[in-house]
Amino acid sequence: MTSSNVTAATQFLEVGQQRYAYRRFGDGSAQPLLFLQHFTGTLDNWDPAVTDPLARGREVILFDNAGVGRSTGSVPTTIAGMAQHAFAFLEALKLTSCDVLGFSLGGMIAQQMALDRPTIFRRMVLVATAPRGGEDIMHLEKPTLQVPLSDPNLRGYAVLSKIFFAPTESSQNSADAFIKRLMQRTHDREPVSGPAVAQAQMAAFREWEAVTGQRFAALKTMRQPTLVVNGVHDEMIPVRNSYWLGENLASAVLLTYPDAGHGSLFQFHESFTRQTTEFLASKSAAAPY
Amino acid sequence: MTSSNVTAATQFLEVGQQRYAYRRFGDGSAQPLLFLQHFTGTLDNWDPAVTDPLARGREVILFDNAGVGRSTGSVPTTIAGMAQHAFAFLEALKLTSCDVLGFSLGGMIAQQMALDRPTIFRRMVLVATAPRGGEDIMHLEKPTLQVPLSDPNLRGYAVLSKIFFAPTESSQNSADAFIKRLMQRTHDREPVSGPAVAQAQMAAFREWEAVTGQRFAALKTMRQPTLVVNGVHDEMIPVRNSYWLGENLASAVLLTYPDAGHGSLFQFHESFTRQTTEFLASKSAAAPY
Repeated sequence: MTSSNVTAATQFLEVGQQRYAYRRFGDGSAQPLLFLQHFTGTLDNWDPAVTDPLARGREVILFDNAGVGRSTGSVPTTIAGMAQHAFAFLEALKLTSCDVLGFSLGGMIAQQMALDRPTIFRRMVLVATAPRGGEDIMHLEKPTLQVPLSDPNLRGYAVLSKIFFAPTESSQNSADAFIKRLMQRTHDREPVSGPAVAQAQMAAFREWEAVTGQRFAALKTMRQPTLVVNGVHDEMIPVRNSYWLGENLASAVLLTYPDAGHGSLFQFHESFTRQTTEFLASKSAAAPY
Repeated sequence: MTSSNVTAATQFLEVGQQRYAYRRFGDGSAQPLLFLQHFTGTLDNWDPAVTDPLARGREVILFDNAGVGRSTGSVPTTIAGMAQHAFAFLEALKLTSCDVLGFSLGGMIAQQMALDRPTIFRRMVLVATAPRGGEDIMHLEKPTLQVPLSDPNLRGYAVLSKIFFAPTESSQNSADAFIKRLMQRTHDREPVSGPAVAQAQMAAFREWEAVTGQRFAALKTMRQPTLVVNGVHDEMIPVRNSYWLGENLASAVLLTYPDAGHGSLFQFHESFTRQTTEFLASKSAAAPY
């Protein structure tokens, strides 16, 4: 048994006509922890410095939503559609309840799932994400993002360094270390997401920005203890979206990191996994830990 | 030796014509922790559920600024004036560096001290406070505060329950427990602050609201690792002031509590003292812990 995303075998689950790719590793008596991934991210985009410490004490389950990585099907164009695939996956695994770590796009899917089925998650960790009706969600056309995204000298992981990290020496050094960790996995790697994945997920972001009903009212109905995390320099989903989560979820602790952007969990992986471990270990009905 | 604010003797230190009242208790090898108190608060307003756990591992030093409690002299009408008294007190104690926990008014004094003398604090914990140039700082005339403050049925500690805690059953229950803890101390108590203290401190808040130079620029020069804490329902110094601290201090982690107001550290004393203990134990030059 391996307990690292560097070496864990990719597994496949058939549900009707649909096949889901996932990895499941770690052990311990704590509730399993489902990881829901960011825009265009696959199983290979989960930093082992985040997954592996959390896999000591529980099983972690990394999941490719439909149309991503080696999961079949079309990428849904709404968060609600992605939530339905995650439900189907968990049902096929016979998991009726788990904890969740949703990063960026994944944090939106986690919120939708908690709304649709309040018993599905015991505790939630929402990183660098936004509530429905949030603002400035993944506008890749704005200059701060368009410049690195259109730079012909930046390709692949090098783009991630620019858009997931802050433009400081310390944050960029963390980016280099992050990318080295992602590259440690050499076999059984995922296909890189193409434009079709990006386009469908971008449509989902646009739909998620729409306010429906009283703004943020749905958050008050989500009673899961929640840990909200972000870097204060997040350009992809600015930190004020995390403030709204902290202020409006029924019971959320907010933790923000300095000198960090969208990928604060990777930059401060030691702190993040320590805080998350303590948060998940709490038996309280409230979020403070 | 006692290690509780319920029983620690009040001590006095003479500095020229000035006498400072303080309490000092606890032990351990960690850096001493200076407590700087809120509007009109005395040594008796420090919750033993906050001071005592932190006194396991270090000395804690509770301090009455000039004109407060049994400290002599006039209450300064500026934060800078209060900072000067705190410096004089630490010098008389022969402490050239310590950690600081500044709550509300005390958090402003801590920031001023860090600006005036960058080596005075190793690490800072700033709770329910605001940067210079912050907004809506202690406007007791606004309806949400004026109603409880002018209610003839509320006196003394009962007012604190309303203005330090959120208007929910859970938060008000925490308020009751907080007040019981404050009342545990029966001997050697402090005089309650009168209108002269309130008036001078209020003048200091008004002066602190003024923007000087580029807004929040001074925060970027404070390089101490800092933990910023607040309740999301703080009516006295709204949480957006804490957001500005987290965004602009050179290296600050922000932690916000749900279902809590100005007194979130008292409401969630177990979490707060645990987080603070872990933060203070870090040897990193950056705030994440």
